Amino acid sequence: MTDVRIGAHRVPALIVRGDARDSRWDAVAGEEPLQLRACGPGQDPVDVAVTMRTPGHEEELALGFLLAEGLIDIADAAAATFEFGDPTLLSQPHNEVLVRVPRPIDLAGVHERHFVATASCGICGRASVDELIARVETMVGGPTIGRSILATLPDAMRQAQAIFEDTGGLHAAALFTADGELVELREDVGRHNAVDKLIGARAIAAALPADDAALLVSGRVSFEIVQKVAVARVPILCAVSAPSDLAVSTAERLGMTLVGFLRGSGFNVYTGAERIDLQA
Amino acid sequence: MTDVRIGAHRVPALIVRGDARDSRWDAVAGEEPLQLRACGPGQDPVDVAVTMRTPGHEEELALGFLLAEGLIDIADAAAATFEFGDPTLLSQPHNEVLVRVPRPIDLAGVHERHFVATASCGICGRASVDELIARVETMVGGPTIGRSILATLPDAMRQAQAIFEDTGGLHAAALFTADGELVELREDVGRHNAVDKLIGARAIAAALPADDAALLVSGRVSFEIVQKVAVARVPILCAVSAPSDLAVSTAERLGMTLVGFLRGSGFNVYTGAERIDLQA
Repeated sequence: MTDVRIGAHRVPALIVRGDARDSRWDAVAGEEPLQLRACGPGQDPVDVAVTMRTPGHEEELALGFLLAEGLIDIADAAAATFEFGDPTLLSQPHNEVLVRVPRPIDLAGVHERHFVATASCGICGRASVDELIARVETMVGGPTIGRSILATLPDAMRQAQAIFEDTGGLHAAALFTADGELVELREDVGRHNAVDKLIGARAIAAALPADDAALLVSGRVSFEIVQKVAVARVPILCAVSAPSDLAVSTAERLGMTLVGFLRGSGFNVYTGAERIDLQA
Repeated sequence: MTDVRIGAHRVPALIVRGDARDSRWDAVAGEEPLQLRACGPGQDPVDVAVTMRTPGHEEELALGFLLAEGLIDIADAAAATFEFGDPTLLSQPHNEVLVRVPRPIDLAGVHERHFVATASCGICGRASVDELIARVETMVGGPTIGRSILATLPDAMRQAQAIFEDTGGLHAAALFTADGELVELREDVGRHNAVDKLIGARAIAAALPADDAALLVSGRVSFEIVQKVAVARVPILCAVSAPSDLAVSTAERLGMTLVGFLRGSGFNVYTGAERIDLQA
C-alpha cells in the first residue's frame, strides 16, 4: 500500500460551511487517461483500451482489466512484464503501459470485441452473462465469515484509505481474510479501476485464485464488478451500497456470496447466505 | 418523470440489522446492456457503443451519449428519430436503439475513435481535453445561484428520486433553474448514463443549450461528467461528492462553475465562484 498518495493534487477552493467561508487549497483525486496495450510472444502490441484512472499502480490496473476481459489467464498475469511509454516522446510516460505475456493473446478477439465497445461505464462489448458463466466455474464451498467480522470491514477499509482522508473522492476495493484481516487495498476515481488494481496486485503476487477471501467495494455493485471478482475466484463480495439485479442474478449463477448495504451493524445478503455465520 | 420505476426489480434477500434478521423481497435497480447505433440520411447504421444501463429512457440516453461524443449536435438531436430492435428477433427489443439524424454522421470518426476504446469507466477513446476545449465555447455570464438555494438542491433531488426510495442503488442527475426549481430528473445504475439521459431529455424537448440552469449529480465528478454538461452548455455543475483534478481543470478552462461536496448547508466551490451568491 505504498505510493497511493500519488493520486492526490491540490486545487484552490472556496469552502462554505453554513455562514463560515474559507479560501484555501483543497486536495482532489488525480485523473488521467491510461492507454493499455498488450501482446504475446512474436505479436505486435495491440491497443486494448483507453481508460480514465487515478495515476498509480498501472501494471496492476492493466492486469486486472485483461484478466476480467478473459484476454489473459491467472498464470499469464503472474508472468507478465511491463513497458511504459517512451519518456523522450511522452510527457506522461506512465499513461501508456504495454503488457507482455508469455502466451499469445487472441488479438482478433480484442478487435472484434472492442470495435463496438465504448460504454460510458460499460461492459466492453461483451454484454453476455452467459459468456462469463461459461468461462468461470461455479464456486462451491469456500470460507464462512462471521456477522461481527463483516461489520468491521467498512471501517477497516476506510482507515486504510490513505487518499480518502484528503480528497473524499476515491473509490476503494479491499481484500480481507475471513478473519477480517486486511490483505490489500487499492483506490481510484473509478470503481472498476479500484477492483482491477486490487486483483492485478494479487495476480502479481501470485496469490490468485483468492478463494479463501472476501472483497469489499466502496460503491455500488454492477455486473462488471461481479465479473471481475468472479475471475479472481473470490467467493464473498461485499459492498457499502446497492447491487443491480444483474449483479444479483450473476452472483447467484456463479455460486458467489453477495452482500450489499454493509453499514454499521447491518447488511443485506442477496446470494450465498451459507457463507455468512449469523451467530459469530 | 414518468416511467422511472421500470428500473426496479425484486430479489429475495436476507436483511440483517444488528440482532434482527428478516428474509424478504428487496428491490434492486435493473441493469441491462444497450446496443446503441446511429446513422444519417443514406448511411448504413453503425454500431457506436454497448453500455450497461438501467432500462428506461433509451432514446434520451442515446442522444446524450452521441451529443457528448460530438457525433451529433443539438439541432440533430432535436430532430432525431428512433427505432428499437425487432421484437420478432429479440427478446428485449428495447436493448437495441437506432438513432436516425437528419445530417450525415462522421462514421469514420466513430470507427477510428472507438477502435481502441473500451474503458471500464472511460472516455471512449478520446482522451484529449484539448479536443473538448476546441469543440465547446468558453462559458461567460449565465445565472447566479444563491447559497441558500444551492443547499436545497440535494433534498429536492432525493425527493424526486422515485426509484431511489426502493433500491438505494441508482445514481441521479437533475436539472434546476437558478431559483432552485426542479426541471428534470433522470436515474441510472451508471452515473454517466443518468447525465446522458437528462441531457438527452432536454435535447428532445428542444431545450438545449440550457445556459440558465444548474445541474446536480449524486456522485463524484470526473472529466467525462464535465464533458457531458459542457456540451449541453449548463454553466453550473454541482455534485454531492468530490471532483477529480481533471474535472476541476477542465471546468476552469471552460468557464464553468464547479461545486463539490454539496451536503447540508456546506459546499466547496472549485471554479467559477462568481456565479454563487454567498449573501442570498
